[in-house]
Order: sequence, then C-alpha cells, then structure tokens
Amino acid sequence: MAAVSHTEATNLTTPSSNNNNDGDDTNTTTTTTFSISPVTLQKLPHLKDYIPQEDLKSQPNPLERNPFYHPSQGFYISHSDVVVRHIVFDLYESFLSSASSIAYHRAGPRDRIFFDPSQTRAAIVTCGGLCPGLNTVIRELVVALWDLYGVRQIFGVKAGYRGFYSSEPVELNPKLVHSWHNRGGTVLETSRGGFDLHKIVDGIQDRQFNQVYIIGGDGTMRGAVNIFDEIRRRKLNVSITCIPKTVDNDVGIIDRSFGFQTAVEMAQQAISAAYVEAESAVNGIGLVKLMGRSTGHIALYATLSSRDVDCCLIPEMEFYLEGKGGLFEFLEQRLKENSHAVLVVAEGAGQDMITRTDAQKEERDESGNPVFLDVGRWLKSELTKWWARNHQNELLTVKYIDPTYMIRAVPANATDRLYCTLLAHSAIHGVMAGYTGFVPGPINGIYAYIPLEEVAQSKNEVDTKDHKWAWVRSVTNQPDFMKV
Amino acid sequence: MAAVSHTEATNLTTPSSNNNNDGDDTNTTTTTTFSISPVTLQKLPHLKDYIPQEDLKSQPNPLERNPFYHPSQGFYISHSDVVVRHIVFDLYESFLSSASSIAYHRAGPRDRIFFDPSQTRAAIVTCGGLCPGLNTVIRELVVALWDLYGVRQIFGVKAGYRGFYSSEPVELNPKLVHSWHNRGGTVLETSRGGFDLHKIVDGIQDRQFNQVYIIGGDGTMRGAVNIFDEIRRRKLNVSITCIPKTVDNDVGIIDRSFGFQTAVEMAQQAISAAYVEAESAVNGIGLVKLMGRSTGHIALYATLSSRDVDCCLIPEMEFYLEGKGGLFEFLEQRLKENSHAVLVVAEGAGQDMITRTDAQKEERDESGNPVFLDVGRWLKSELTKWWARNHQNELLTVKYIDPTYMIRAVPANATDRLYCTLLAHSAIHGVMAGYTGFVPGPINGIYAYIPLEEVAQSKNEVDTKDHKWAWVRSVTNQPDFMKV
Amino acid sequence: MAAVSHTEATNLTTPSSNNNNDGDDTNTTTTTTFSISPVTLQKLPHLKDYIPQEDLKSQPNPLERNPFYHPSQGFYISHSDVVVRHIVFDLYESFLSSASSIAYHRAGPRDRIFFDPSQTRAAIVTCGGLCPGLNTVIRELVVALWDLYGVRQIFGVKAGYRGFYSSEPVELNPKLVHSWHNRGGTVLETSRGGFDLHKIVDGIQDRQFNQVYIIGGDGTMRGAVNIFDEIRRRKLNVSITCIPKTVDNDVGIIDRSFGFQTAVEMAQQAISAAYVEAESAVNGIGLVKLMGRSTGHIALYATLSSRDVDCCLIPEMEFYLEGKGGLFEFLEQRLKENSHAVLVVAEGAGQDMITRTDAQKEERDESGNPVFLDVGRWLKSELTKWWARNHQNELLTVKYIDPTYMIRAVPANATDRLYCTLLAHSAIHGVMAGYTGFVPGPINGIYAYIPLEEVAQSKNEVDTKDHKWAWVRSVTNQPDFMKV
Amino acid sequence: MAAVSHTEATNLTTPSSNNNNDGDDTNTTTTTTFSISPVTLQKLPHLKDYIPQEDLKSQPNPLERNPFYHPSQGFYISHSDVVVRHIVFDLYESFLSSASSIAYHRAGPRDRIFFDPSQTRAAIVTCGGLCPGLNTVIRELVVALWDLYGVRQIFGVKAGYRGFYSSEPVELNPKLVHSWHNRGGTVLETSRGGFDLHKIVDGIQDRQFNQVYIIGGDGTMRGAVNIFDEIRRRKLNVSITCIPKTVDNDVGIIDRSFGFQTAVEMAQQAISAAYVEAESAVNGIGLVKLMGRSTGHIALYATLSSRDVDCCLIPEMEFYLEGKGGLFEFLEQRLKENSHAVLVVAEGAGQDMITRTDAQKEERDESGNPVFLDVGRWLKSELTKWWARNHQNELLTVKYIDPTYMIRAVPANATDRLYCTLLAHSAIHGVMAGYTGFVPGPINGIYAYIPLEEVAQSKNEVDTKDHKWAWVRSVTNQPDFMKV
Repeated sequence: MAAVSHTEATNLTTPSSNNNNDGDDTNTTTTTTFSISPVTLQKLPHLKDYIPQEDLKSQPNPLERNPFYHPSQGFYISHSDVVVRHIVFDLYESFLSSASSIAYHRAGPRDRIFFDPSQTRAAIVTCGGLCPGLNTVIRELVVALWDLYGVRQIFGVKAGYRGFYSSEPVELNPKLVHSWHNRGGTVLETSRGGFDLHKIVDGIQDRQFNQVYIIGGDGTMRGAVNIFDEIRRRKLNVSITCIPKTVDNDVGIIDRSFGFQTAVEMAQQAISAAYVEAESAVNGIGLVKLMGRSTGHIALYATLSSRDVDCCLIPEMEFYLEGKGGLFEFLEQRLKENSHAVLVVAEGAGQDMITRTDAQKEERDESGNPVFLDVGRWLKSELTKWWARNHQNELLTVKYIDPTYMIRAVPANATDRLYCTLLAHSAIHGVMAGYTGFVPGPINGIYAYIPLEEVAQSKNEVDTKDHKWAWVRSVTNQPDFMKV
Repeated sequence: MAAVSHTEATNLTTPSSNNNNDGDDTNTTTTTTFSISPVTLQKLPHLKDYIPQEDLKSQPNPLERNPFYHPSQGFYISHSDVVVRHIVFDLYESFLSSASSIAYHRAGPRDRIFFDPSQTRAAIVTCGGLCPGLNTVIRELVVALWDLYGVRQIFGVKAGYRGFYSSEPVELNPKLVHSWHNRGGTVLETSRGGFDLHKIVDGIQDRQFNQVYIIGGDGTMRGAVNIFDEIRRRKLNVSITCIPKTVDNDVGIIDRSFGFQTAVEMAQQAISAAYVEAESAVNGIGLVKLMGRSTGHIALYATLSSRDVDCCLIPEMEFYLEGKGGLFEFLEQRLKENSHAVLVVAEGAGQDMITRTDAQKEERDESGNPVFLDVGRWLKSELTKWWARNHQNELLTVKYIDPTYMIRAVPANATDRLYCTLLAHSAIHGVMAGYTGFVPGPINGIYAYIPLEEVAQSKNEVDTKDHKWAWVRSVTNQPDFMKV
Repeated sequence: MAAVSHTEATNLTTPSSNNNNDGDDTNTTTTTTFSISPVTLQKLPHLKDYIPQEDLKSQPNPLERNPFYHPSQGFYISHSDVVVRHIVFDLYESFLSSASSIAYHRAGPRDRIFFDPSQTRAAIVTCGGLCPGLNTVIRELVVALWDLYGVRQIFGVKAGYRGFYSSEPVELNPKLVHSWHNRGGTVLETSRGGFDLHKIVDGIQDRQFNQVYIIGGDGTMRGAVNIFDEIRRRKLNVSITCIPKTVDNDVGIIDRSFGFQTAVEMAQQAISAAYVEAESAVNGIGLVKLMGRSTGHIALYATLSSRDVDCCLIPEMEFYLEGKGGLFEFLEQRLKENSHAVLVVAEGAGQDMITRTDAQKEERDESGNPVFLDVGRWLKSELTKWWARNHQNELLTVKYIDPTYMIRAVPANATDRLYCTLLAHSAIHGVMAGYTGFVPGPINGIYAYIPLEEVAQSKNEVDTKDHKWAWVRSVTNQPDFMKV
Repeated sequence: MAAVSHTEATNLTTPSSNNNNDGDDTNTTTTTTFSISPVTLQKLPHLKDYIPQEDLKSQPNPLERNPFYHPSQGFYISHSDVVVRHIVFDLYESFLSSASSIAYHRAGPRDRIFFDPSQTRAAIVTCGGLCPGLNTVIRELVVALWDLYGVRQIFGVKAGYRGFYSSEPVELNPKLVHSWHNRGGTVLETSRGGFDLHKIVDGIQDRQFNQVYIIGGDGTMRGAVNIFDEIRRRKLNVSITCIPKTVDNDVGIIDRSFGFQTAVEMAQQAISAAYVEAESAVNGIGLVKLMGRSTGHIALYATLSSRDVDCCLIPEMEFYLEGKGGLFEFLEQRLKENSHAVLVVAEGAGQDMITRTDAQKEERDESGNPVFLDVGRWLKSELTKWWARNHQNELLTVKYIDPTYMIRAVPANATDRLYCTLLAHSAIHGVMAGYTGFVPGPINGIYAYIPLEEVAQSKNEVDTKDHKWAWVRSVTNQPDFMKV
C-alpha cells in the first residue's frame, strides 16, 4: 500500500478528464512525497537451520588471502542487504501488483563461509531440454569454485537426475571446461525424468557431495524441492541450489531466465526467412512456430524485436479462426493490402482448438498431461483449407518454419553469457555462505537469493492486459479476438 | 533510510563474525518486516506549466477509436503511476545509495492527449556519433506516430542540430522507413556541433514543428536543455523529448542506453580475434581497444561476456606499467603460464600516462577538451619497448585491434531493437500527453519519464568498488593496481 | 581421346602393381607430351540466324564512349574465344568423361552490339522456388544494363511466367534496386506453373520487350526453350537468356549454380544444432534433412564441410535400414562408441522405401510426378520403432531438423554475390551482342555461353563412384550399403 | 597453339566490324572443330628418383582392407591421370595465356603406397601469419592419416620452422584435434623466420620424421624447396609436401589459396561498416584497408561482392591523387552526387607515394625489404588535407577501418572448410604414394600435384587488363588513372 503523506497530498487530485484540470497536478512547485507500507523480508534457508552449531564451522572468505585483490569496504554483502521486489505504485491505489511488497536477501560474496574448500565436494547436474548458456553456467561454476574459493573436487553428474545413481560422475577442472562456453547444449548431457528421490539422495551421500548445483526447469525445480526436504530430513550437511533453466522464460519472480535473450535473437532468423518467403510469393503466408508451451514470451519478444510480424498468437490469449474479428478475416485483409503476411505462433497456443484423433486424446507425456500437437502444421492445414474454400483459382503459399532445435542448441550470446556468469557466481557465493534451498537470480536487476520452493511454485505468464502485450498489438495491429 | 520495525527487530542482530553466531539471524521463524522512508516523486514538466489553459485543448486517446483494439481496464497509465528508483537497502544502515529515494512517473499511454493529431508536426533529429539502433528509433517514432496516433506530418531533420536551420527537412512515412531498422547508422545523417540556439528554435518555429524528438548523447542533451528553456521562454506550444544515445552507456539514471548490448555483442568478435592471434603466437599479446571515453562499461561487459580476457583497463581505474603489482609484471607471469595474454582497454583509460608532444598538449576537440590519444597504439609501443629491454632474443607478438567503427555501425540486435521500440513508444506517449523536457527510459526495468535536465547532468560510471567490477577481477584475476 | 605422342610414349608404361615398377614412370628426365583429339565448338544461337541482315543493325559497344574507362587491348571477347570443357585425361585411355571434348564461346563484352540501348526494352522474371542470390541477379541486371549499356527501359515481370500476361510489369532503375542484394527472396515475386506459351510470347510482343532475362530452374528452362522456339518461329527481334536457378545444384554443364555455396554455409547451422542436440543427450541422434530432390549435392557438401556428420544419405545412392551393413547396424555401433550420431539426408533420398498410403500413391505434384514424402519424419519414426524393438529401457532421443526455408530465404554470401554479379554481366554482354537462347555460366572457372537447350536437358548428379563421394565415406566412415 | 582444322576452318573468318559481317560466323550449320597443340606433362618428384629401389617398399593401399568401403572401378588415380592447365583459346591466335599448355598429375588415392603406416612418423608445421582454415588443415591431416591410412605417429611441430630444432613436438590424434576446425588461428602456433636449413633437416632426421607437411606462404615455400633439396642431397627416405597458405591469394598456378573466400566474406563486414559510417555523415568517406601486400585479390573480390564501394585501389594499378582523372576529382564528384563514398585499398597499394621519414627509409622487414607504411592512415591524412585546402567550412568525415586481424583470425567458412579437407587429403594421398617436393591444389577445379619449386616461384597477380578487373571498374565506375 502506498500512502501519500497528508501534507503533500493536498496538491494531488483524482485523475479526471475534464478540460479544466486534465487530471494533472503538476502546476505547483511543492514536492510530492509518499510512503510505502512495510516490506516483508523473505526468509532464506541456511544450513544452521537444522545443523547443530558445533557441526558447522565457518571461516573467512578466501578472497581475503588473494594476492591480487584487496576487497574494499562494502565489497562483502551482509545478511541485512536486501532488494525490494515491488517497485511500481499508484499513489491513489494499492500496489499495482496484487502481491504485498516483499524483499529478498541480496546475492554476493559473504565475509565468512561455511565450507572448508579443501573438504568441499561439489556436484553439478543439468536436467531437461537444451537452453543456450547451459555450458556457460557449468563452466563458470567450475572456474569460480576453483579460482575464487579454491575448491578442487568438482564433479559433473551425467545426463540429468538419473546420473546421481546410474553412472560415475566426471571430475571437472578449469582446463577441461575452458572453452565450453563456446559450445551449445550441455557437455554433461541431460535427460528428462529419472527422478528417484531416495536413490538420488543416497547417491549424494555415497559420493559425499556437500554442494549440489542443479540446473533445470520447473519439473526439475519441483524435484529439487523434494531433494532439499529429504536432505534436511536426513540432516545432511549439504547445500543445494537450483539455477532455473527455461528457454520459455516461464519461471516467476526472477527478471528472466538465461538463454531467453539468445533465443529471441535466433528467432529473428526464422521470422526473417518467413517474411522473405511470404513477400516473394503471391499471397504468401510465412508461419513460424516458436517455443512456449504455457507462456508466449519468446513469441512476444521475437515479434516486438522483428517488426515484420502481422500477427502473434500465444497460449495466454484465446483466438478464433472464422467469422468477424477472426484470424482469417484479418489475414484476408492483410493479403489484400500487402499480398503477404507473417504469423508467429507459440507452440502452446490454440491447443484446445486442434481436432485430436482418439489416439491423440489418450496420449500423455511423461508428466501425465495431454501431449502437445503441432499447432503450426494444424494452422497451415486450416489456412490452406480456408483459402481453397473461398479463393478458387487464386494462389496461396503457406511456408511453415519450426526453428526450435536450431534456436535452443546455439551457444549463449554475449548478454546471456554475462548473465550466466553472474548467476553461477551468485550461486556459489550463496552456497559457500551456507545458504541452501535457494535460487539465485535478478530481481529488478539486482541479484538476490530466493527460496527454491517459492520459485518452483511461481509462474511467469504474459499479462495480456499489460502494456507489453498492448505493444504487440500496436505493432502488428492484430485483432484482440474479443468477440464483440 | 530503511527502518526495521521495532517488533520484529528483536530477532535481528548486528552481523558479527564470531563462530557462535556467524552474523546470521535466520534461526527463527518470525517474519521480518521493515519500513522505507518517504519517497520523493520527481516533478515532470508539462506544457500546461507555462501554456494558458485555454490554449491547451485535450482530447481522448485515439486508441479509443481503434477498431481492432479495446484498451482494457488499467491499460492507460495515469499521472499517479510511479516507479521507485532506489530499491536496495541495508536494514541496519541508511540506503546503500547515497541519494535519497526518488520516484518517477511511469511511461505509457495516457487516456487523454494534448495534441490534435491532424495539427501535429513532429520533427526527428539525430546528433553525434553512430550507435546501433539509431534507425530503429527513427523508424519506430515514425510508425507509431502514424499508426497509434494518426499523425501524418512527420519530418526528419538532416545531419544533426544544424539541420534545423541549414537544410530542408525530409517528410517521413511508414512505407519509407519500413526496413530502416535493418540498417546500421542513421538515414537522417548526423553530425557533431552546429548548435546555434536561436537559429534552432527559430527553425522549429518557422517550420511549425510542435513535437521535437532529439536523439543524441550528453552534449546533445545539454543543448536540448537549452532548447527546452528557450521554448518555454518563448511560451511555444512545443513538446520536446530526448532519447539518450550513447554507445558507451555513460548516461545516468536510466538502466542502460540503447545500442549498448549490441556493442558488447560485437566486441566479442574483436576479443575472439585478439585471443586467436595471441594464442597462435609465441608470447602473443592480443590488445583490443573498445569505446568508452570516460566510462569503461563496454570494456567491462565485453570482458565479462568473453571469458578470454586476462586484463581489462578502464578510465575509472588507475593503473601503472612498471614495478611490483604493475601491468608488465602481471603480463610476464601470464605469458610464462599460458604463452599468451589478452588485454582489453577502454579508449579513455590511461590518458594521463601517455606522453604528449607539445602540439598534442595544445590540441583541443570541438568541446575544448584535450584530444584523446590512441591508448592502444601507446600500449602496444610500451609493451614492445618493455619486452625488448628485458627479453632479448625471445619472441613477442602484439596484435592491436581497434574495432570501433565495425561495432558502432551495425544494426541493433534483437534485444536492442525491442528496447528502441519501447523507448520510441514511451517518448511518443509522453509527448502526446503534453509532457515536455523529459527523457523516456527504464528505471529498474520499468519505463519512466525523467526530467531532461536531471539526465543531462547525470553520469553513469563504473563503480570499481562494486561487485560487477569485482567480478572482472575475479574472472581475470588481474591486479587491482593499488600500490601496497 | 588423348594420344600420347610416339616419341615420348616410350617411357610410359601401363600401370602395374609389381614391386619392380610400381606403375610409375618418373625415373626419367625426358619430357612427356601428349596430344588431345579435336575439340568440337558448340554452336551458339544468334539473332542473325533468323533475322534478315537488313533488320539487324549493330553499333560499337558504348563502353567506347565511357569517360572513365578505356578498354585495353584484349578487353573485348571475340567470337573466336573459346573455353574447353573436358580437361581431365588418362594418357592411356580415352577421356575419363564419356562425352567427347567440347568447347564453348567465352562470355564477356563484345566490341559491337546488336541492340540500340535507347530502343531496348528489357524484361526480367523470376520463376520457381527461392534461392539465395535471386535479388542480387536482378539488381545486377538492372544496374549493369543501365550503367554499362545505357538502357533505360527495364521491367520486372511479377510472380513468374504468369506475370507476362496477368499483371503489369514494374519499371526498374538502379536507385530502386540499390540495396536489393542485401535481401533474401525475390522482390519481383515468384510462382510455380503459369506457363502458357502463347500468352507469354504474346505478352512479350505486346509490351515490346526485346530482351528477356529469365531466372529459373529446370522446369523454367524447359519452358524457356519453348519460348525461344516460338520467338524464332515468329521471327521476333527478341533475345532471350536464362540464368539457371537451382539451390540443389542439379543443373549440368556449368560448374555450379548460384546460391549453392550460401546454402551449404547455412546448412552448417542446422548440422551444428543437430550435433549439439545429439551430443547433449543419452543415445542422441541428430537428423537433418537438406534440400536435394534428385541430387544430393547440398547434403554432400554440407557433410564434407561440417566434419560432425556420421552418415549422409542422398538420392544417388541406395541404402537400407535393417540387417548387416545397414543403417541401423551402423548407428548402433556409433551410439555405442560415442553415445551420439548425426544423420544428414537429402529430401529425395529413400523415397522408394517410404510406405505410402493409397491416397499418397495417387497424389501428384504440378508436374505429374508422385509427391515427395518427408523422408526425415519417416526416418525419425523408423529409428524410434527400431530402438523400441531392440533396446527396451534404454533412452533414445531423435531430434529432427528441417531448415529448408531458413536456408533458401537468406541473402547470398560474398562468394555467391560475386558469382551472381558475373552471371548477370555475362548475360547482358551476350544479349547485347545479339546472342539468344543461351545460358551464361562458368565452365572450369571460365564464363561461357552455352546453348539453352543443352543446359535444359542436362543433369548434374553426384557420381557416387567419384572421389568426392569417396571423401564423404572417408570422412564419415559410413557404410557403402552394398550388400555383400 | 590452337589450330582450327582445315575442313571446318572455311566457315571461320577473321572478326571484323563491318555491318555486313559483324565478325560473326554463326550463319552456318556445319560443326566447328579445332585441335590443340601438344601438351607438356609436368614432372612430379618421387622418392624413387633418388632412393634405391631395394630400399623403397610399396604395399597396397589400406583402403583395400576397409570393412565399410569397397573402392569401385576407377576409384584410384593412376600416374597417367592428368589435368590440363590452359583451357582458353582464341581460334585465330595462339593461346590467350603466354605460357604453353601444361598438364599436371591428378591428386587422389593411389592403389599402392610407399610408406608402411606402422613405420610412418608424420610432422605437421605451420609458418608465417594467420589464415582462416589453418586449424582445419591440421585437423584433417591428423584425422585422415589416422583413419584412412592407419598412421599412429603424428606430430605437431610448434611455432613454425624453429620448432624443428628448438622445442619438443606435440603428439596429435583424432580425439585431440576433434573440434580444432571450429577455432581460428593455429593451435600449433606459428612464427616468422627461424629458418635454419641444417638444424631443420637435422631435426627431421633426429626425430625420425619421414613425412613432413608444411603449411605456409611464399617465404615458407622457398624454405621448403631448400629443405627438399637437402633431403634429396642426404638421400633421406622422407617425403615433403607444402600446402600454400596465403590469405592474399598471391600464389600462382593453383586456383586459389585456402582462407581466401572466408577473408572476402569477413571483409564485407568492414565494408558495410564503412558504408554506414559514410552514408550517415555529411560528406562521409569510409576507408577500408584490406590485406594484400603485393596483390589486390582480397580488395578486388571484396569490392565485387559488396556493391557498395566507389573505388578500389590495388598494388597492381598505379593511381594518383591530384589533377584531372585523379582520386580527389573522382571523390569530389561522388560526394557531390551521393554525399558519401567508400574507398577500399589493399595494404600494398600506393607504397611509392607515401612520404617516408629518413628513419622509415632505412627500416627493413625480416626479409630485408622496405617496411610497409600504413596506406590507410596516409590516405586519410591526404584526404583531410585536400578537403581543408579546397572546402573550407564544409564538413568532411573520414572513417578509417583496418579489419586485418579480425579477418584473418576467424575459422574457415563452409566453402573453405571443404577446400581445406580436400587439400589435406590430396596431400596425404600424394605423400603416401611416395611423391615428394610437391604442392597439392586445384587446377581449373581439378585437384592436382604441382612441383613445389614451380609453385614457390609463381606469383598470382591481378591482371588489370582482364575482365574481372574491368568488372570492378564497371561496378564502381572508378577512373582508370591513365593520364590522358
């Protein structure tokens, strides 16, 4: 709740639209100030929450002994350094966001650490699908553990969660990982599934790992929460952290996920190709499917970056094909005007509209959800049928591009590479300081530590009532598919 | 000032380093909350500050009449929507930042506008050096003025400030600018200097421009402040806004300037080349000079993104060549270890150390400052001399790369293209709403309007005591050049 | 037939493999010389073949009047300048190539031209699918007609052959086409079909075109032969030339077709992505389908350029899946060795092996041939079924990438851009000199004019017995699929 | 000498320009044939030239035992397979080329080899400056020696010629070099100089190398000739081959050198940047210096590929600045027309025109030649002075770009990567077959073996009387600098 202080509030009036006032209050030189309601600081789990004090020794940060580097005043982050999450207010209303204001502990090096580097055994694992930057995160974890904290026992767990119990970990060092950031994918290999809680925690114990760095998406994070709980139940002196990996950018709270900017960049190639194909044909339609199962961020950002897209369809927005205000009417008009059009569709859009065979209705993915059908192929088919019905003897060309694997398999671009580095360093600083069950990530641009459980439950959806989405419509002038 | 509320403060104790406590306070389940001291809202200039109310008619935003788009509840931003700038606190101290907390009005469409689109004559001008994204900003200004607000009289002023009085403006429309975003540079041409206050404002009056969009750097912004003052003095019904253009990212308050990310991306090519040259030689040194006259952001970010740099020198940090802890000692060691090293230097670094001829001492640039000498050529020469002195009969290869023009002349990448779009739209929404003398830009990720004068006086320097800079050192392990 | 001259032939002996001789003849210092059997010069059609001499005026090449440029001795190509096609011989055998040796007239400017530039009306048309460089060819035709020969009436025929009779041509000039080479696709638009001989030739006559530049693939070229015949039948003073456009590189006689190198370059992205996907999975197979309906040149060259491909399948080579020496056996082994494999398949490969539904058996494309089925989807499905049969409980990941439209829609790279320029200039020089019914193109690196009919009938297939194909096998160590 | 055969020669007449004949002879249907004068086959050195037969054992090519691959009829190249070099004729004149017609032995696998793979010790060395593709050649040599011929003792000689005697060679294998082709530069390191004939040949003997693969430029090749002579003098059973490495493409006989196409591609970036800088300024001149000490191929090809260059200056062509027909006059006109201009200059152009200080007159490079001065900086300075003299108060902007190291340090593009592979394989096949003192390379597109000495003496210059150069002028309309 933002409360305008009484003395200054006098010169603030309710927005109105009459010409005498125009809802403005700037014709005064007094300063406006306002107060913000109390902020709640999010609790951050720490090993000492459940490990007896006598079993938990701390020591000064090894940076203190670095011959080259002399930490200056204010270099170390302390437990009282916080960042505020909700920063947008309406002076006359409550917070724009429905959530009450929350603060998180800032990420960064602490002056004391709770692991003896010579006794530290760190495990790194990647789970789920590919995402640009995976190898950068791994590389930076290895290099920074080695160089900043002197850790010498660093292991890569192979091929996702199953690697904790089904194969030997690989020993990693800076020389080995030196140029991994220039490669797409993950050298550690990845896989879906394979989550077996007790085998995994047994594996952690058996191999005497005391730091676990997990890089994975929402399913992986939910698994990590369980691992964290089991570790606490067993009272293991093991810190666990999770770096969210989702090229779709569908994880909440943090500003964005790594690899997302690279994906948007790469998507431009596909959109450009679709545009060229469309423009070079008579009544050409270029159709691009982009990643985004439940959220349309890549489609949205790629559309806004491109300027060549006529219509962008995302899971958060309903749309319809036939009739007034529908997609076909819109495309008909665009083809008449320009003789070509470009459509971008997120993979999760329109799933309810696709006719499924009985077999497809039964089919489930590994998590028990109905499988996704290829919205791009469906749209192409519907477009062709529609045209054949209504425009006999007129040409139509629909070129469908699915660049998914060409997008997600590239190495991170410079922006994401820097981001991966900061994530990896943040993770290490937190773990070395004894924090556990947390996710490192930027909040309004400031790196912070967020409870893992909170992130695992969060969801970052496109707010179609928000300005960014409005921008798409202003850019594309596409219909809002609100039947009126 | 952040004040922890009394009731909860009991479980907060001063950080300490004794082993019994470890400066931590998390062993309690009570919630921590804290209050933030009152926030000052920055005043935003508006035409009605000096134009009599009867001369200033408003009308509903034309989006209301858009057949495709139905603005939803909360779509319009009101004058009471603000964003808070300082969001990082130390619960035991005052704000980490020395500035007191400030808020700015949010950018975005207003429900009423103060210009009649049919009477609007908008002028767009680009000043100073090139920067990726210039053409995107121009294109988006034209397209959005045309499409969103129905403005039909949009003009490009040629070749910087002098274009207001020395040449005919070019009429712009969406078809003409359609693919400009794919081109580097500025189609409107640009130049330095040519600032003649009265001729410029006369030119604005003569051509009956009532919206002026200026895209330029710090010098340009200082000029724009004067134009704004003169416009107010003459009581002209003219809104002026300025979009900061500085590839160096040296403008303050806003999160970053457009084109910066693209520059960092492109700089990778030069660093990679330097790395390859160094690695392929015996005692090879790759030396890259990057833009940054008074601030080292590009050098810093490019170094952090690359992972192949051994040492990064920036204007904000003093360094020395000879002796203990100096650059030569450091390079000697790196060459011994790896047989190669990569140096990145910002163009403004080390200017005081370069020996100047008498002529060079006299030379001034257009603004009367001593001209910059080429720190890269100087460093190359010093390195060669040093080696010849100390390592007879040993090979040394120094390859010096200056990629400046190859970096700044490229089109914007996807990230910057989106950013340019949002900047242009923000600018237009503000100007149409009657605001003037402002800069649009993101504050902690939220687009806001900031008084032009405040931005013109601001400076964004690399804080070498801060963590990002610490990260460079941790990444490169380079010396801190603090003679001890 | 190469005949070794008698005097020197004495020191040449038949290759043998006994150790005393080793099939070698180098232990002598006498010089070896040999003679080549007579070469046949290919006849090149010319307007004067059927236009009476009095109707056909020639004039000096306008380059003679160029103020900047003074053609030196030997600058003009004469009708007696020829290039030899078969240049590889076995001294003991006949020509390695079965064709007898043939020569073609060289391309280049002639000292006299048969068109009055002020009376010239040139038409340019693009037919069929997209190919990198299309816009470059168009641009260069326009610019060179204008600048080199002073032609001022240049027209773009829209959307393929149908444009000759169904729409108005677009007037072209250097300013308009100035930056077209930076764009993919064809600004003139293209389409398949629409070939109506008499309407087309009527259209040529109606619009008084006297130079026709056709850019298209094999079907287009067969159409162009008919147009050429009809033009001759009607005794029109119209020169026609055809620039072969086939990204597949399946046109014979010429060294290669434009856009091919760009396609091979772009294909690397898809192969790299497939490699990354494969390498990052447990038993990962990356599968890339590349263009090539009847010939596998792109697949072959892309494989040879990449070094990351395990197996390359092309239409010219039979292959089988099951059993000894089959694909599955090979992949099984590779997966065991490396845990990943990359497959490249040309779109025309294996068409006979794909099970077709009854409907698919009936389906014909526009030319009446059975439609192509998607070999990539089929292979992915077969691979999955095979694995499920034989490797229960073991993971397999097959990622299938079809980059077709992302490859063919890009602008030409530097190599192809230069090539397009030389093709366009060659075409113009030939047409201006009165030649007609020809194709310009490089023969052993030398630009020449080849009768259109000869090129239209030619076919450039991968010779799987040849060394280049052998190289693929040596590079990939893939099976030769010769059941033994 | 091409002799038209008598019977058909009757229908060939001397080209003339009178209107009755127009120098044409096509009005007849008889076939034209002609004969080519005897061709001389270039002798190719072989170990058996100086090694006694009893010391030189041959054995079947190991490909015979390859389980996957069954060499088909005609797969092996025999000593009688040749390729003809001069293929362009004027039917009425002698060869267009002054050289008499020459043939070379074709490259490719032989059915018998003269090295026992188990006894083979191969050395690979890179000398001189960087060139795209160096690592690809190394990688392919290693992989093909290993995979095709079963060689297991392969060594990298470090840092150029001096590595033969001053450091330990590095053992190489396919796993180690697996991804080297994706990296620019040379992992083996390189250096200039260090040529000490006897130390080198002693080193070869001491380390029992019997195959030596040298990758280097013209100086390196001249050294290699000496090594070859010394090896023969010592009657060592050592084969030596040299793969020409010159990004400038200044080596003769072969079609082109590896890395050249990549360099031309990369140069586009610099030219584009120069164009953008020029176009965005008032009277903007973009100036790009490209590699090319004695030949202008890169400048020429980059200009032809770009279409944005106004003038291209190369060492093979004299030019002058002042006066009628000079560069300044030309630029003045271009600036008047377009307000911008782009200049490309090869580094070796205009060296005679640059004023040298006394010190510079004395300075010599390692080979004793006068050092090259920076023609780009000189031109920039001359342009600025010229403008100041003649255009007071008018703006001029000259932006100078030297992309040299950013061009030569990149990995090879697809075209060059394939080319490097074929070169490496050709080299190995030749060496295994006992040939020595040769260079592998394409002649008119056919890979052949050329005596090393012949290549070392050759020079590939731009023929400014030829059509390609004429094309530049036609493309740029630049003056021919022939004072008239």
